[in-house]
Amino acid sequence: MCGIFAYLNYNVPRTRHEILCMLVKGLQRLEYRGYDSAGVAIDGGNDKNWEKNFKSIKLIKKRGKVKALEEEINKQVDLDMEVRFECHVGIAHTRWATHGEPNFVNSHPHRSEKNNEFLVIHNGIITNYKDLKKFLESKGYEFESETDTEVIPKLIKYMYDNRESDEISFSTLVERVTQQLEGAFALVFKSVHFPGQAVGTRRGSPLLIGLHSKECFPTDHIPILYRSGLDKKSGAICDEASLQPLGETLSMEFFFASDASAIIEHTKRVIFLEDDDVAAVVDGRLSIHRITRSASDNTSRAIQTLQMELQEIMKGNFSSFMQKEISEQPESVVNTMRGRVNFDDYTVVLGGLMDHIKDIRRCRRLIVIGCGTSYHAGIATRQVLEELSELPVMVELSSDFLDRNTPVFRDDVCFFISQSGETADTLLALRYCKGRGALTVGITNTVGSSISRETDCGVHINAGPEIGVASTKAYTSQFVAMVMFSLMMCDDRLSMQKRRREIIDGLRILQDQIRQVLELNEQIQVLAQELTCERSLLVMGRGYNYATCLEGALKIKEITYMHSEGILAGELKHGPLALVDKMMPVIMIIVKDPTYVKCQNALQQVVARQGHPILICERNDEESSKHAYRTIEIPHTQDCLQGILSVIPLQLLSLHLAILRGYDVDFPRNLAKSVTVE
Amino acid sequence: MCGIFAYLNYNVPRTRHEILCMLVKGLQRLEYRGYDSAGVAIDGGNDKNWEKNFKSIKLIKKRGKVKALEEEINKQVDLDMEVRFECHVGIAHTRWATHGEPNFVNSHPHRSEKNNEFLVIHNGIITNYKDLKKFLESKGYEFESETDTEVIPKLIKYMYDNRESDEISFSTLVERVTQQLEGAFALVFKSVHFPGQAVGTRRGSPLLIGLHSKECFPTDHIPILYRSGLDKKSGAICDEASLQPLGETLSMEFFFASDASAIIEHTKRVIFLEDDDVAAVVDGRLSIHRITRSASDNTSRAIQTLQMELQEIMKGNFSSFMQKEISEQPESVVNTMRGRVNFDDYTVVLGGLMDHIKDIRRCRRLIVIGCGTSYHAGIATRQVLEELSELPVMVELSSDFLDRNTPVFRDDVCFFISQSGETADTLLALRYCKGRGALTVGITNTVGSSISRETDCGVHINAGPEIGVASTKAYTSQFVAMVMFSLMMCDDRLSMQKRRREIIDGLRILQDQIRQVLELNEQIQVLAQELTCERSLLVMGRGYNYATCLEGALKIKEITYMHSEGILAGELKHGPLALVDKMMPVIMIIVKDPTYVKCQNALQQVVARQGHPILICERNDEESSKHAYRTIEIPHTQDCLQGILSVIPLQLLSLHLAILRGYDVDFPRNLAKSVTVE
Repeated sequence: MCGIFAYLNYNVPRTRHEILCMLVKGLQRLEYRGYDSAGVAIDGGNDKNWEKNFKSIKLIKKRGKVKALEEEINKQVDLDMEVRFECHVGIAHTRWATHGEPNFVNSHPHRSEKNNEFLVIHNGIITNYKDLKKFLESKGYEFESETDTEVIPKLIKYMYDNRESDEISFSTLVERVTQQLEGAFALVFKSVHFPGQAVGTRRGSPLLIGLHSKECFPTDHIPILYRSGLDKKSGAICDEASLQPLGETLSMEFFFASDASAIIEHTKRVIFLEDDDVAAVVDGRLSIHRITRSASDNTSRAIQTLQMELQEIMKGNFSSFMQKEISEQPESVVNTMRGRVNFDDYTVVLGGLMDHIKDIRRCRRLIVIGCGTSYHAGIATRQVLEELSELPVMVELSSDFLDRNTPVFRDDVCFFISQSGETADTLLALRYCKGRGALTVGITNTVGSSISRETDCGVHINAGPEIGVASTKAYTSQFVAMVMFSLMMCDDRLSMQKRRREIIDGLRILQDQIRQVLELNEQIQVLAQELTCERSLLVMGRGYNYATCLEGALKIKEITYMHSEGILAGELKHGPLALVDKMMPVIMIIVKDPTYVKCQNALQQVVARQGHPILICERNDEESSKHAYRTIEIPHTQDCLQGILSVIPLQLLSLHLAILRGYDVDFPRNLAKSVTVE
Repeated sequence: MCGIFAYLNYNVPRTRHEILCMLVKGLQRLEYRGYDSAGVAIDGGNDKNWEKNFKSIKLIKKRGKVKALEEEINKQVDLDMEVRFECHVGIAHTRWATHGEPNFVNSHPHRSEKNNEFLVIHNGIITNYKDLKKFLESKGYEFESETDTEVIPKLIKYMYDNRESDEISFSTLVERVTQQLEGAFALVFKSVHFPGQAVGTRRGSPLLIGLHSKECFPTDHIPILYRSGLDKKSGAICDEASLQPLGETLSMEFFFASDASAIIEHTKRVIFLEDDDVAAVVDGRLSIHRITRSASDNTSRAIQTLQMELQEIMKGNFSSFMQKEISEQPESVVNTMRGRVNFDDYTVVLGGLMDHIKDIRRCRRLIVIGCGTSYHAGIATRQVLEELSELPVMVELSSDFLDRNTPVFRDDVCFFISQSGETADTLLALRYCKGRGALTVGITNTVGSSISRETDCGVHINAGPEIGVASTKAYTSQFVAMVMFSLMMCDDRLSMQKRRREIIDGLRILQDQIRQVLELNEQIQVLAQELTCERSLLVMGRGYNYATCLEGALKIKEITYMHSEGILAGELKHGPLALVDKMMPVIMIIVKDPTYVKCQNALQQVVARQGHPILICERNDEESSKHAYRTIEIPHTQDCLQGILSVIPLQLLSLHLAILRGYDVDFPRNLAKSVTVE
C-alpha cells in the first residue's frame, strides 16, 4: 500500500514553499500507509512570472520516511522557495514497496523520460506491467526502475506522442492509459503539456478528492460525463452555466488523497471516486468522466461532508498510535454499541442491517471473510454466532477463499470484515460473492470505503481512525459488532432469552472490565522485560480463546519480529508439544468456560515437559495459578466475551516488547496499515 | 501390508519345536509390516514316523501381535513338539488388516475348507474377490471370513477337484489360480495333497526365497521353465543332471519371505522373484515357472548374495522407520488406488462407499474432521472436493469442532480422517455427529479400528503400517483417498469429464513422479546441513499448497524441535512479513498453478525484504529460480495433486534436520504415535 496526495491551487496564490509544506504534511498524514520512500513533483524554474515555470517539472525523491524527504527538500539550493504561483499542481507519494526494493530510483513520482514530461503517483499493483514494458521497450522507451508503476508515465507519453490531434485532452489520454492497465491502482497525473491541470483515476485502490473554496457550492452532486453508452450528460463542477461557486471569481483548491486523514485539516467536503472514474481539473473546474454508462450506475458523484475531527487522527499524549489505540478501547467498544444495544429492554438493533435481517435469518449458511486481525475477529465470534443463529458458519481467509474458488450460493450470507474497508483481497472476495448472488454484509471502520459502499448492507464499527499498523481497537470493536449481530439473529427465540440477557449484561460492564485489564499495564511491562531477548513464543488456548492466541501471536510477530505462534491447545499432542521444553516461553490462556478442564490437561502436559507457562487466567483461579510461572489475572465475563478481555494483555505485551527491543511500534518493518493490493 | 514367511526343510531333520521357533522368529522380524493378528500352519499328527503326519495340517492363529501367537502355540497340548521331520513345510503370516476386522477368523493362513486341504498366506489385495466369491459360492463353497484372501484357497481347491488328470503339479494349480486373480499379491501355498512341497508366487507384492545347504551350489542362476512362448528351457536348481549341490546327498532349506529381514540370520543366498514367477519346491528341488516368455525377459533368476547385516534389516536399509515410510510412498499411493481407479476407462470405485454414494451426493454440506496431519490432508484436498462435488466443504480440527458444539444436521456428511482410526478427539467428534443424524464416513489406515467400525461407511487407505510417529505415507495416501472420493462425486457430470481424466492421468504417473522427488534426497540433505543451527523456519505457500506448508512445518516441529510455521502467502502483508529479514530462513512453494502470479508477488516481497528464500518449484521455472537462494525442483502434475509431490521434500528435510541435530527420528520427545486420549 502507498499513500498518494496531490494539491492543486487555482486563483489561490501560494509560494513554492507553501506548496511544498502542503505536500509534505499530506504525506505525513498518509505515512502509516507506507514509509519506504517518498517523493514530490512540482513545477520547476525560478521565474517570477509563474506561468513560465510550467515548462519544466522538478522531481525530488528520497529513500526512507517523509522526514528524510523533507530534509532533502530543504537542501534544494537551486529552487527559489518564494516564487508565487496563482495556479499550480503538486503531486506527492509515500511508498510501500511491492515491486523493487525501497530505493531512490524505485521511488515515486515516476516519469515518462528524463525531461519529466509526464509524472504519475500510483498506489496499487499493475499486474500486466511486464507485457506493457516489453511493448514500450520495443518502441524505444528506456526504463530506469524495477517498478510496475513506471510503465504508466511511459505509456501516457506514448499515447501523447501518437495522438491523432492536438485537441486531445489530458483526461482522454489517462482514459486510454487505464484501458491498457490490469491490476489495482489509484493514480494522479501531472504534465508539462497540460500546465495547471491534474487528472486522477482509480480501480481497486482508494482515491478521494477534497474541495475547498472561499465561496459555497451551488450543488452537492457532480454529474458524470460519459464518452458513450446510454446517454451523455454534461456539467462538470464549476461549469460556467450552473456549478461555479457563488463568488465573483473562480478560486479553488483541490486535494487528491488516498484517504481523508490527509485532507481533513484543509476541508471536509469530499468526493469518493468510484472504480474507473477519471477526474480532471482544468482551469480550476473539476469534471468526472466515464467511458460508458450502464443502467444501474449513478449518474453523479455526491460531495460528502466528513464527520471526523482532526484531533482524532493525532497521537495525543501517547508514545505511539498503537498505545493510544489500546487505551481507547474502553471508549471504542462503547462507541461500537452506541445507539444499538439497549441495556434496559435488552434489545439490539443494527440499523444498517434492518432492511435485510429477515433475509439473513432465512439463509442456509453464514460465511465470514477477512484477512489478518479481521479474520481473527471472525474466528473469535464464530462459536457465539453458531450458537445464537443455529446456522453453519464458515470463517475464511480472503486470499484462500479466492484461491479456492469456494462454492458460494444465492442462499448464503457473506460477511466482509476489514478495518479500512479497502483490503484488496477482502474486496475481491466481496465482488466474487456478489457475482454469485449471495447477500453481502460489510463490517468496516471506514465510512465511504469500497467495502462499505459495495456491500448490500453493513455495520460500521465506529472505533475511530486506527493509525497504528498493528490493529487493536478495531479488533475488539469488530468482535463486539459480531456479537451484536449474533444477538440480533436470535431476538425472537424464547429459549435463548436467558442467554441473550447474560451476554447483554456482559456487554454492559465491558467498558469497566477493559479499564481493569488496562491497569495491568505495569505488570505486563515487567513481564516484557523478562521476555525481551526470547526468539520464539508460543501462545496456547482453545475454545472461545483460540482466536486470542492467534491474534496475540500476530501482534507479537508484527511489531516485535519475535517468532510467536498461536496454537490450539487441543492440537498440542498432535505435534506442537515437541517444541515445549524449559527454554521455550509459553503463554497459556485458561478461563472458567466449558473448556476449563481440557485447558488444565494442556497445562499439565506443558508442566510435565518442564515448560514454565505464563498464564492469562481469571482472578482467584488457584488451581491454574499453582502451576504457573507468572499469572496475569483478568476479570471474569461471559464465555463468549472473554476473548475481548484476554487479548488486551497480549496487545500490551507486544507493545512493551517492541519498545524494549527498540522498534518503531507504529511503523513495523515491511508492513503497512491497510493492504490494498492482493 | 502383511508379512509372509515359510520354511521348508529337506533332508535336514528338525523337531516340530524347532520348526515352530523358526516360523515365530520369522514373523517377529516381519512384525513391522503388520501386527493385527498372526498364524502358522504346520503338519499335524504325532506319529514318530514323520511321513504319516503329512495327512493333516494343523492351523494355529491368534489375534494380536506375534507374541500372542507364540503363547498360543505353547498352549497346544495335543501337539508333540519333539516329533522330528526329515522334510516339512511350515507357513506363517502376520497381518495388517485391509478387508475384515483383525480377529481370529480373518487371520491367515486361510484354508480351502475345514479339513485344511489347501492353505495359503497372502500379502496384498485381491480386487476381484467379490466376483470370485460369488462364483465359488455358486459352486457350494462356504466362506468363513470377511477377507479377500479366502477366495484363494477355495479357488485352488476348486481347480484341484476339477483337475483333468492326477498328474497335475502343485505349481500348475497355482498358475491357474493366479490367472484368475486381480490386484496385488505375494502367496505361499501348502497342501495335504502335495506333502513336503511349497509353491510361492507374486504380483505387485514382494517375495523372495532364501536357499541354504551345507554343500555349495554349482551355479548362481536358475533357468526358468516356460509353459509356452519363444522356447522352453529346462533346468531347475538341483536338477539331477546339473544343478544338485556338490555333496553326496541332497539336503536343503528354503525360506520364503516378504523381505530379507526374516531370512538374513539363516542365509544370505537369495532369489528375488519377479511378478508372475511361480516358484515350486518338490523333493527339495526348486524350479521357477512362467506361462509365457516374451523377448525381453531374462531367462533365469540369479541367486544373489545379500550384503546387509542383521541389525540393518528391521528397517531395511533405512536409518529409521520414518525414512523407510517416506521411501515407501511410490508404492503406498499405488496401494491406496489399487482396485479402485481404473486408468483405462477412467472410473473410480470406492467399494466401501458404494452403498451410500447416492445419499452423499444429495447432501447439503461436507464436513471433514481430523487432528494434526489428518487435518492437513483435509485442508489439502478441500479445494478439489469443493470443485468436483460443488458442495460447501468445511474442514475442522476435531478438538475445536467439539469445543464449539458446532451445529451439525441430518443432511450433512461428515468425514473422519485418522491413520490409527483411534484418535480420541476424532472419535468423539464422530459420535457427536452420529448423535445428530449426519452420515459418517471414515478414512483410516486401520481396518477394525474404532472409527472404521463406528462410521456408516468408509475408505481404508491401505498405506501399510506406519511406525514413525511423524506421519508421512499416511498423509499422501489420505490425500489420494480424498481425491478419489472427489472423483467419485462427479463421475456422472459431463462438464467435468475432461478435468476428471486429467486428474486420473495425473494419478497414473504419480508413482513415477514420487520416485523422481525421492531422488532429491541428497540435495535436501545438503540443504539440511545449512539449516541445522537455525531456530526458526517459515514455510510459505498458498492455494493447493497451503496445506503443504502446514504439514511441512508440522513435520519440522515434531521431530527437529525447530520452531517452524506454515504461513499462507496471501496473509504475508497482514503480519508475518515483519518476521522476514536476511536472517530468517524461508521456504516458499511456488508451482505453476492458478496462484503462480500471486506467489511471484509474495516472492518479490520476501526478496525486497532481503530474505533468501529456498524454493520448492517446478523444473525449469527460471522466473522463480532467479530470485531463489536455493531451489528444489519437483515434477509438474495436476494442480490438485501437486501437494503430494511438494510435501515430500519437506518430509525429507525434517528427517535430515532431525538426524543432524541428533534426535531420535521415530520417537520425538513428548509425542506418541496415535493420540487416544483427548
